[in-house]
Amino acid sequence: MTHALPDAALDQILRTARTFNKFQNKPVSDETLHALYELAKWGPTSMNCQPARIIFVRSAEAKAKLKQALSPGNVDKTLAAPVTAIVASDSQFFEHLPNQFPALPQARDMFAGNATLASDTAFRNSSLQAAYLMIAGRALGLDSGAMSGFNPQVLNEQFFADGRYKANMLINFGYGDATGNWPRGPRLAFNEVARID
Amino acid sequence: MTHALPDAALDQILRTARTFNKFQNKPVSDETLHALYELAKWGPTSMNCQPARIIFVRSAEAKAKLKQALSPGNVDKTLAAPVTAIVASDSQFFEHLPNQFPALPQARDMFAGNATLASDTAFRNSSLQAAYLMIAGRALGLDSGAMSGFNPQVLNEQFFADGRYKANMLINFGYGDATGNWPRGPRLAFNEVARID
Repeated sequence: MTHALPDAALDQILRTARTFNKFQNKPVSDETLHALYELAKWGPTSMNCQPARIIFVRSAEAKAKLKQALSPGNVDKTLAAPVTAIVASDSQFFEHLPNQFPALPQARDMFAGNATLASDTAFRNSSLQAAYLMIAGRALGLDSGAMSGFNPQVLNEQFFADGRYKANMLINFGYGDATGNWPRGPRLAFNEVARID
Repeated sequence: MTHALPDAALDQILRTARTFNKFQNKPVSDETLHALYELAKWGPTSMNCQPARIIFVRSAEAKAKLKQALSPGNVDKTLAAPVTAIVASDSQFFEHLPNQFPALPQARDMFAGNATLASDTAFRNSSLQAAYLMIAGRALGLDSGAMSGFNPQVLNEQFFADGRYKANMLINFGYGDATGNWPRGPRLAFNEVARID
């Protein structure tokens, strides 16, 4: 029987957490990026399929490649961020299912034989995993700002030339500087978006 | 400057958290479902678009409608779960953008004029919001088990007959009974799925 986390923890992961556009001039180490993945990896995916593939873009050379794909409004903040995660999905994720989900031996073939099911599953589950990365980051004291404002064709050409991986979204990570924050957007009320049947 | 949450909190939201197939015979109250949404709603979405729409299926009548759409392997556990959240997306989510994202007055028209961008955005962001619901539930002491094994056409006919909302995934919520857990699936290693450029 688990209980609710203390208020300070609920605040840190969701309630008062913010999207950051500006970060302190403080690098994010390899060790921190590994810790981030080692926490986020435990989030659930359907049939444990884990389609997300991640490139942490940190060097000037890699940032220059990324820049070519960014929407104009995302260029400056992304080049200035300590690291930008490209969250992509592996279109052939199902090749891992015999190891990742041995409970259902036919799982690989279900996806291998149905391109729409495979691409929907890759998109849905790599999106779930992007959310786990952001929440795991916050839980570890790492701030972030996610974006889908980029040209996926250009990004895929730059980073995934063989066509197997498809960019889904970008997440800047670092230690936030709140002076770059926008006013917090309102959220839709329960009664606008949910009901109990 | 935030710090990492204590180990017990990291465990509860991700590290030792599990997907549950079986739940204790203990109802989930309206108050708890509202608290779940009030926490999860703070998760970030692109342009604050919040496309997720949720039906919490709890009554016998609503469960009977849901049953018609479930894959055979998901029927018994879902009928037995205290509540099942249908996480759908609103294909017309952009109608809320003038209120939700006033910073960009042209945001509504960007999506209204581009059906592929709108449907990708709805799918990606309602998936992020499904992850926030699961993590928020865990943070509040509520266990869950998510599924994409259902017939979306049948589900949409049963619950969203006018065609505006599209089912994305299902999440059973309750207070977990670990006797129904499967062995924990392995996770892909950092070096199999990520790199630092």
